[in-house]
Amino acid sequence: MEEQRVPLVQAALLGLGTVGGGVYKLIERQAEELPHKTGARVAVRKILVRDRNKERPGIPPEKLTDDWQEILSDPEIRIVIEVMGGIEPARTYIEQALRAGKQVVTANKDLLAEYGEELTNLANGQGCDLMFEAAVAGGIPIIRPLKNSLVGNHIEEVMGIVNGTTNFILSRMSQDGMDYQEALELAAKLGYAEADPTADVEGLDAGRKMAIMASLAFHTRVVASDVYTEGISKISAKDIRYAKEFGYVVKLLGIARETEGGIEVKVHPALIPDSHPLAAVGDSFNAVFVRGDAVGDTMFYGRGAGEFPTASAVLGDVVDEVRHILGHSTGRCNGSFYKNLPVKPVGETDCRFFLRMQVEDKPGVLAGICSVLGNNGVSIAQVVQKKKQRTAGVAELVIITDSVKERYFRDALTIFGGMSLVRKISSVIRVYE
Amino acid sequence: MEEQRVPLVQAALLGLGTVGGGVYKLIERQAEELPHKTGARVAVRKILVRDRNKERPGIPPEKLTDDWQEILSDPEIRIVIEVMGGIEPARTYIEQALRAGKQVVTANKDLLAEYGEELTNLANGQGCDLMFEAAVAGGIPIIRPLKNSLVGNHIEEVMGIVNGTTNFILSRMSQDGMDYQEALELAAKLGYAEADPTADVEGLDAGRKMAIMASLAFHTRVVASDVYTEGISKISAKDIRYAKEFGYVVKLLGIARETEGGIEVKVHPALIPDSHPLAAVGDSFNAVFVRGDAVGDTMFYGRGAGEFPTASAVLGDVVDEVRHILGHSTGRCNGSFYKNLPVKPVGETDCRFFLRMQVEDKPGVLAGICSVLGNNGVSIAQVVQKKKQRTAGVAELVIITDSVKERYFRDALTIFGGMSLVRKISSVIRVYE
Repeated sequence: MEEQRVPLVQAALLGLGTVGGGVYKLIERQAEELPHKTGARVAVRKILVRDRNKERPGIPPEKLTDDWQEILSDPEIRIVIEVMGGIEPARTYIEQALRAGKQVVTANKDLLAEYGEELTNLANGQGCDLMFEAAVAGGIPIIRPLKNSLVGNHIEEVMGIVNGTTNFILSRMSQDGMDYQEALELAAKLGYAEADPTADVEGLDAGRKMAIMASLAFHTRVVASDVYTEGISKISAKDIRYAKEFGYVVKLLGIARETEGGIEVKVHPALIPDSHPLAAVGDSFNAVFVRGDAVGDTMFYGRGAGEFPTASAVLGDVVDEVRHILGHSTGRCNGSFYKNLPVKPVGETDCRFFLRMQVEDKPGVLAGICSVLGNNGVSIAQVVQKKKQRTAGVAELVIITDSVKERYFRDALTIFGGMSLVRKISSVIRVYE
Repeated sequence: MEEQRVPLVQAALLGLGTVGGGVYKLIERQAEELPHKTGARVAVRKILVRDRNKERPGIPPEKLTDDWQEILSDPEIRIVIEVMGGIEPARTYIEQALRAGKQVVTANKDLLAEYGEELTNLANGQGCDLMFEAAVAGGIPIIRPLKNSLVGNHIEEVMGIVNGTTNFILSRMSQDGMDYQEALELAAKLGYAEADPTADVEGLDAGRKMAIMASLAFHTRVVASDVYTEGISKISAKDIRYAKEFGYVVKLLGIARETEGGIEVKVHPALIPDSHPLAAVGDSFNAVFVRGDAVGDTMFYGRGAGEFPTASAVLGDVVDEVRHILGHSTGRCNGSFYKNLPVKPVGETDCRFFLRMQVEDKPGVLAGICSVLGNNGVSIAQVVQKKKQRTAGVAELVIITDSVKERYFRDALTIFGGMSLVRKISSVIRVYE
């Protein structure tokens, strides 16, 4: 294509960390291809950074600015790519950009899991695009399938492994027999875990992603605090070995379902059958499983984080916005929140449970345990009792229950807590099926 | 939404077989949701059928017509959904629809694998949409990711299991120890194989899908006849057992790669490591693996055929077109064929090979075989020799080679054919890695 005849669409980058750097490099790398793919040249005109004087190899210094107003007031900047993260000032900048008629691409899951509906409604009202493929599961195309490809479906369930740090840790525990602390240290050493790993290992990061996907799938506002989250720090190598014996793998799952009484959205460790496609998702990979009434089961697999995978998702959004800008058709695919379904408290959701406990090793104990479960409406699917060698008089009991309303199961646990023959509840892990 | 204020977009359905019936039912089922999702009501106004008088439960007879002109000349029909299959008259109808300014959705892989470039160029010239998510891998969103989500990538490889019939047969052979004929008969009984299964089992169906995906991934015209195809009818239960011993699973793979000398596009049975995500894709499921320079490895998994999975893909396209019609922005995402890369003949592609042969059981034979391979530039990765009990004097030799240009390997096979100590070449299967 002759350069002078191809229009130029310019963008601003807010933030130049790992993802921002990847986006800049990828746009440069694709410079010759983008005119063919979009009908326009695409260029980064300005980059908002905190410190303009920091050395940044490969970035032309004249593109750097520490002044948001310079970007906001520049009519040549049609697209704002927010990759700074955090709620503020990202929220203010995005709102101002939309009000100024600019298109927005963001990778900011914290922000979307809190203000997704407000920002979507603002974008719709302004006739602008708000795109966020990179906010969930990195490079894996999952937002666009939920919004477009699978739009003819009633989505029944969105479920998956959406945090790479915890999947890496659990994979090491499962494959190499490491314990949690050892695997966490290895993850930190290899750069898979941050200095403060709380948001990852406690399921908060996954919870935000599930809130975003549940909103899209069920056309209902779901925010981070609606999501029940439980992390992996209490999972032991022993639990993983028992799970294997029963034919399961332990994964940190995000689960969002539409059920009769409302939406269920949870993040917790779970036993998943080793024949399930998600069971084979190892290392730091992510995968999202979607069940629709028409399409049946689908799965989307790939890298959930990292400089270039995330930049790939951002650039996919940028290209869509360029096409919409050229076609004067922005603001048409932002989704809507028309259903207002209630989100169920976790106690009201149904689940199967894996329960490992230390009990007195004497006649009648198993009968006692079973009758407590039975009286609370919990029926037993599988049970294994092993005598411990070292602690005389104590046996280890492992039970997998049938599906039961979670609060009934918790009632049973409360009763166990008051029984002298129950020495210790060692672990309670949900079972996905 | 108040019905009178919501615009109505009307479509025509060409064909009312399994897929057409599914599309009709799915549009009906989504009638209340579509206005929220698209901003318009969507209705099927006319259905083109061969026999108007055939009983069709659930279809209002006044919608049926056997006259294409009635649809073509109706300005209320903005979208034509072609689900009749075959080259003609589908090609003519689609061309005429595009020339009349109508948007087109098609599930017709035969047509696209032959005339994809012409139809795309025509659609682009007319400012119309030509969409075909349903033509490849049924309900799995793969066309849209290749066109949009992954557009910031240089695609290096598209690879996958894109034929459900053959995957079902190979899964039964592998898991239940069936032989090929037995598994094929079971597939026919369960409706997974057609009365004449040739197009499926000989890899032609998969070849068409690979041509379509290779065109999109490499921005180059690739037609069905460019694709080297080899079917599964020669795969034996014994090959599958040997593969297992070496840590492999046998799958019918479609492989499209951009390499230095051009594009490689092939469909053939292949040994794939049992740790590869595709190895776990069983039953009649499909999965497509895409490797991009930015995103790395991604995989898309789901149902590759069937009434509602395919209808799901069609409806995703219809919804996109409705949005484009409302936004006056059709004709912007049809892709382009700007690269014109050459397609390599299969002899020039590189591959590893699994070779099973019957040889005379006497000293020096293995040395002789190895020197033929070595003289032709083929190096050996693994070898197993087993003495056959029943046939005195004959040993079975199984060799897995390193990667080699295919024609060098074939030269070695030709020489084996003239050697008296080689009694029989029992099988040659490529190895994917």
